[in-house]
Amino acid sequence: MPPTKKSASSRRSACPISGSLDIIGDRWSLLVIRDLFRGLKRYGEFTGSPEGIPTNVLAERLVRLEENGILASEPYQKNPTRYAYTLTPKGRSLKPVLAALGQWGARHVPGTRIPVELSAALSDD
Amino acid sequence: MPPTKKSASSRRSACPISGSLDIIGDRWSLLVIRDLFRGLKRYGEFTGSPEGIPTNVLAERLVRLEENGILASEPYQKNPTRYAYTLTPKGRSLKPVLAALGQWGARHVPGTRIPVELSAALSDD
Repeated sequence: MPPTKKSASSRRSACPISGSLDIIGDRWSLLVIRDLFRGLKRYGEFTGSPEGIPTNVLAERLVRLEENGILASEPYQKNPTRYAYTLTPKGRSLKPVLAALGQWGARHVPGTRIPVELSAALSDD
Repeated sequence: MPPTKKSASSRRSACPISGSLDIIGDRWSLLVIRDLFRGLKRYGEFTGSPEGIPTNVLAERLVRLEENGILASEPYQKNPTRYAYTLTPKGRSLKPVLAALGQWGARHVPGTRIPVELSAALSDD
């Protein structure tokens, strides 16, 4: 997908936690990455997830995550051109972050549970 | 600290990753939690961190994190009343999330490094 507008936020400090949050520290980026781990690839698949990501937010996050080397896009259709998205190795290495968030949520956020297919996708290789 | 205004964002789905991000999925909350792991306790200590958290954001996050049971506050001074903040067990159980973000950032965000004292604070008990 061609690069557009908003680039990554500027770096706030030399702390790697801060540096990570500069890139994926928002309410939506890690949910898109979760869906990529689940094997979803297409724009319409992401918008079908239960959280209901707003389409403008999804479009902006896909661009930003690609600019940051976390995902890659490949056209799978022309007229109109549509893209399929997949995680890069850099994106796949976020797995421990997602696993830790899932474990914390399952333990501390009432009413949540890890679906079997997500648990499998986030287990160690 | 007495509860005020904004409560936690509403739950977006039954996914525990989403549920975690509803609470701490923003650019600042996990940096405040990082500072609590480093042993910082007071408002002025948090504002002194290199990321320069805006004071209104810090005040809002401290209230929200306390409402969500992640930190506890205790007055340490009167006229004016000032509070000291510490992590609850629920907050301390976010350690694997911070450790994973730190490891990912140190590997993938150029120019970042984990300070020794933070590395010690985030190592396994």
